[in-house]
Amino acid sequence: MTAKPQSPILTLITDFGLQDEFVGVLKGVILNHARAARIVDISHLIPPQAIGTASHLLARSYGYFPAATIHLVIVDPGVGSSRAILAIAADSHYFVGPDNGVFTPILDQAASVTVYRVDTTATLFKNISATFHGRDIMAPVAGQLAAGLDISRLGPGIAKNSCQRLPGPVSCHLGATLQGEIVHVDVFGNTCTNISREAAESFAAGQSIQVQVSDGLILPLDRSYASQVKGTALALYDSHDYLEIAINQGNAARSLGLAVGMKVHLVRQS
Amino acid sequence: MTAKPQSPILTLITDFGLQDEFVGVLKGVILNHARAARIVDISHLIPPQAIGTASHLLARSYGYFPAATIHLVIVDPGVGSSRAILAIAADSHYFVGPDNGVFTPILDQAASVTVYRVDTTATLFKNISATFHGRDIMAPVAGQLAAGLDISRLGPGIAKNSCQRLPGPVSCHLGATLQGEIVHVDVFGNTCTNISREAAESFAAGQSIQVQVSDGLILPLDRSYASQVKGTALALYDSHDYLEIAINQGNAARSLGLAVGMKVHLVRQS
Amino acid sequence: MTAKPQSPILTLITDFGLQDEFVGVLKGVILNHARAARIVDISHLIPPQAIGTASHLLARSYGYFPAATIHLVIVDPGVGSSRAILAIAADSHYFVGPDNGVFTPILDQAASVTVYRVDTTATLFKNISATFHGRDIMAPVAGQLAAGLDISRLGPGIAKNSCQRLPGPVSCHLGATLQGEIVHVDVFGNTCTNISREAAESFAAGQSIQVQVSDGLILPLDRSYASQVKGTALALYDSHDYLEIAINQGNAARSLGLAVGMKVHLVRQS
Repeated sequence: MTAKPQSPILTLITDFGLQDEFVGVLKGVILNHARAARIVDISHLIPPQAIGTASHLLARSYGYFPAATIHLVIVDPGVGSSRAILAIAADSHYFVGPDNGVFTPILDQAASVTVYRVDTTATLFKNISATFHGRDIMAPVAGQLAAGLDISRLGPGIAKNSCQRLPGPVSCHLGATLQGEIVHVDVFGNTCTNISREAAESFAAGQSIQVQVSDGLILPLDRSYASQVKGTALALYDSHDYLEIAINQGNAARSLGLAVGMKVHLVRQS
Repeated sequence: MTAKPQSPILTLITDFGLQDEFVGVLKGVILNHARAARIVDISHLIPPQAIGTASHLLARSYGYFPAATIHLVIVDPGVGSSRAILAIAADSHYFVGPDNGVFTPILDQAASVTVYRVDTTATLFKNISATFHGRDIMAPVAGQLAAGLDISRLGPGIAKNSCQRLPGPVSCHLGATLQGEIVHVDVFGNTCTNISREAAESFAAGQSIQVQVSDGLILPLDRSYASQVKGTALALYDSHDYLEIAINQGNAARSLGLAVGMKVHLVRQS
Repeated sequence: MTAKPQSPILTLITDFGLQDEFVGVLKGVILNHARAARIVDISHLIPPQAIGTASHLLARSYGYFPAATIHLVIVDPGVGSSRAILAIAADSHYFVGPDNGVFTPILDQAASVTVYRVDTTATLFKNISATFHGRDIMAPVAGQLAAGLDISRLGPGIAKNSCQRLPGPVSCHLGATLQGEIVHVDVFGNTCTNISREAAESFAAGQSIQVQVSDGLILPLDRSYASQVKGTALALYDSHDYLEIAINQGNAARSLGLAVGMKVHLVRQS
């Protein structure tokens, strides 16, 4: 993974918003290091300091990019502290960001993970501010990777088990139900849960299942939004094969009062 | 229109918003098919399922791009149903999106329109989800066009008259007035109507005209915002030569209570 | 500064928002003039007609881009009036936008400033609308610069002192305090003041200082957000070495009721 293509691709996930100059400045710094870089925004509207949301979006996006893409994730409540900056090679991709748990799905699930702790005393970094390590450390690191620097030159290799992890919600059997929870609400008000199709089908064991949310509302499990008439609430498997609660052409989170952290139960139809 | 330039240009119009990973994933898929593609966002803030708004923005933007640009429009309330995916060659541009009326202005007004219905059983598509045809069908189609695939290879040609159309508001003579309606409100609160300069000038027949909105408010027709003092409401022809209602350095929609669908009348000054 | 690199870089600052097609149209026009251009968004969420905010973002971003980058700034309440369009070469960068004060920090602080007034009667411009000079004048100018046009060909050189300036707030000594004011509130609710580290340290003259906001609240001056426990308000020097008021992992503007224009005082600790 040392030979770089002619036009390296970078992606950005931050909580910088779109109103200020922060994202543009990151891109300027990257282009100074790698003029041919192609920079793709994943999202800059991560809620401030919401490491879990950034992690969720990263896990759902990086695999759609070509091999050797560099994914820069800057949600960094610990800026100015001694938390490390990581550079990771995993699953034929690169990842750069703070060691605060945002890379949990990469560390836990990707193939062949190698982690480096960026040496911030290197001459690459000058005038590191106390408030904008995205600009002063992480963008130069990503830019140098895009310019072809071998990742092992950035600092010492460290054990992936020494990196911070987010506590992940897990689905579990609870009486005669399979219990999971809502982990993300998207812009349409569709709510994503942590119950995979695999876990649900294993639980169902060939029987029909229904989905129960909050205070007892029972939803049918169907194939697509359009399988139900407009305005109907349903459960379905989303495009990553996780259980989702939605309303055809409506906003399920708003209409049903759903939010991240709420429990969801699968029940077998009797 | 089969020879592609070295760096193909694609534009995107969606209702995916900017908070989730959806737009980034589209771009990743496109770059996998056409690494040299240049991707330009037109808007991702189309209100959910607002086909008419997407159609309005497409009509007002595509002509400013170089010939052979590929315009991908994903506002798709019918995702998961059997509605077709269209690939259209028209006016020296390409268009890709669902057959739900979003291409009405292209189908009705562009030169030399050829329409293909994308064959979604082709080997190009694998693992089509029930909820994200933008990622699984439309982005691969756009990416393949960018990579140089001849559009006629995507599926059978179909008659343009068999495609879905949006019912468009039309301006009409009503007594001694010309009646039109508000079709879009932009971020400044300027309101765009469906009355063209040509229709207005033909109606005026050389006389001065005024513009009447909602409950009788009469506005002068002037040349530019700055022709009136700050805070003054006026009508003028917008940058596409349609009648617009605005307030110089103010928000006309908010101040005058205007919204899409409201009637506007031209009257000759007596 | 006439030889252009193979892939010219342009940046955009506008108050066009992200919901309409305006930004996409600018990019289409630029790509028609300079197909290889790389276009970077700084911000399109400048509040409508907020020239001061655009100026602040420009001053804080342009220097992070490679030399010869073209910075297009379109916040233009005077569109349709006779205000001039400027093309400026300064500090090894180019700047294009209306003569309304938005370039004040460039005109006042950049090295070797040369200003040209764009001749809008040139054949480069056709069908100039009364409402969208960004599309009809400024994007073509930026595109032509990106395509290699010598800036002196755009129109007559003019004295930089003849250009519009914004009245800038200045910090000043007031009794035993140094008084400044809040000039920007960013997306995190961090508030930027006009008191530079240099001015503050000169005022401190080696003594410890504290920061007083609005109605007497006294804040410590510390090194980084993370130097204080979560939820604590503090003052610190931001990444441009100006005094900032923040709350570690919180929103200072909202929690402390701070807004642009409010006074801030430095006091020496007794």
